[in-house]
Amino acid sequence: MTTVEFFFEFASTYSYPAAARIGEHAALHGISIAWRPFLLGPIFKARGWNDSPFNLHPAKGHYMWRDLERVCAALELPFRRPSVFPRNGLLAARLVCLVQDEPWVSDLVRAIYAENFAADHDISDRIVLGEILETLDRPRELLDAAQSPAAKDRLRSQTERAAALGIFGAPSFVVGSELFWGNDRLEDALAWAWRENREASAG
Amino acid sequence: MTTVEFFFEFASTYSYPAAARIGEHAALHGISIAWRPFLLGPIFKARGWNDSPFNLHPAKGHYMWRDLERVCAALELPFRRPSVFPRNGLLAARLVCLVQDEPWVSDLVRAIYAENFAADHDISDRIVLGEILETLDRPRELLDAAQSPAAKDRLRSQTERAAALGIFGAPSFVVGSELFWGNDRLEDALAWAWRENREASAG
Repeated sequence: MTTVEFFFEFASTYSYPAAARIGEHAALHGISIAWRPFLLGPIFKARGWNDSPFNLHPAKGHYMWRDLERVCAALELPFRRPSVFPRNGLLAARLVCLVQDEPWVSDLVRAIYAENFAADHDISDRIVLGEILETLDRPRELLDAAQSPAAKDRLRSQTERAAALGIFGAPSFVVGSELFWGNDRLEDALAWAWRENREASAG
Repeated sequence: MTTVEFFFEFASTYSYPAAARIGEHAALHGISIAWRPFLLGPIFKARGWNDSPFNLHPAKGHYMWRDLERVCAALELPFRRPSVFPRNGLLAARLVCLVQDEPWVSDLVRAIYAENFAADHDISDRIVLGEILETLDRPRELLDAAQSPAAKDRLRSQTERAAALGIFGAPSFVVGSELFWGNDRLEDALAWAWRENREASAG
């Protein structure tokens, strides 16, 4: 069965509504999702950027914040513009890497996004992440494991794989050899996977 | 009544499906469209770019061509990747400026886009543009008027206005003080205008 690989980065603004929506949409289509945290930083750095393009290009950034506000309002998704942007999502991404194949990964990811984009909390703070784990009845000790060399390697290889797949922004969705970029392409990615599954079962 | 201002640039890939779709969608919503050609070149230059971002960033460009192919296929809109990108749309934009408030402007714009993105013809060529005018039963002499100082000024001020409105890419849609960017936001822009009209008539 075709899986949709969902590549997201915790500092990425449009990954927030995508992470909030993907579970329900995937269930409706009968599609399974592989949650794939990665880092945009190294990919941007390879292009010569040392900051988010939304900061480097003020007109685009100004637009994005207003657009995101409209997108979240339409979804009735709480949103507050983070006082720091982009937030450092390194520890959060390493943590999620460790448990990305667990059934509760979607709850963890959505909770982290809500801290950044609705509560305006610092998601690089161990206390913030520890409280999320506690709320989800998961051991805070996962945060220590998230700082192990194995966890670091895992995130590094996932980021390298994203770059090798041609990913240049987030959220991105990979369905077989097709790449879809942006929260606006979530439905298209799921529909593509749905058609592939239908063809596979018909063949 | 609220009008949607549709800002487009002839070299812009996603302006092609937007120009093809906007007329029918606007009619469905009972919204009037103001057709606004402008140039992205000066706006990109102000950011320090001397080429399309899709050429400057190969991964993004590679993605865009595949995505555009999928978008056009879903709309059953003929598409062939232009052998030259971006094409010089200066003369075409000056021509359209002259007649942008005529009822047949939409036919002219769609015909020019089809030459670039379906027929792969050079839209900076007077012969190509002249043939479009002839097909539409309009005088070829409009091309001389398009090279007059008045026409040049008109496109220049429209481009300056676009920049002043915060426009940084194409297509863009302006509804009162709201800006919407991208072919993916066409429906949102029209829905926004529709709500403003409803509120105005209710008030």
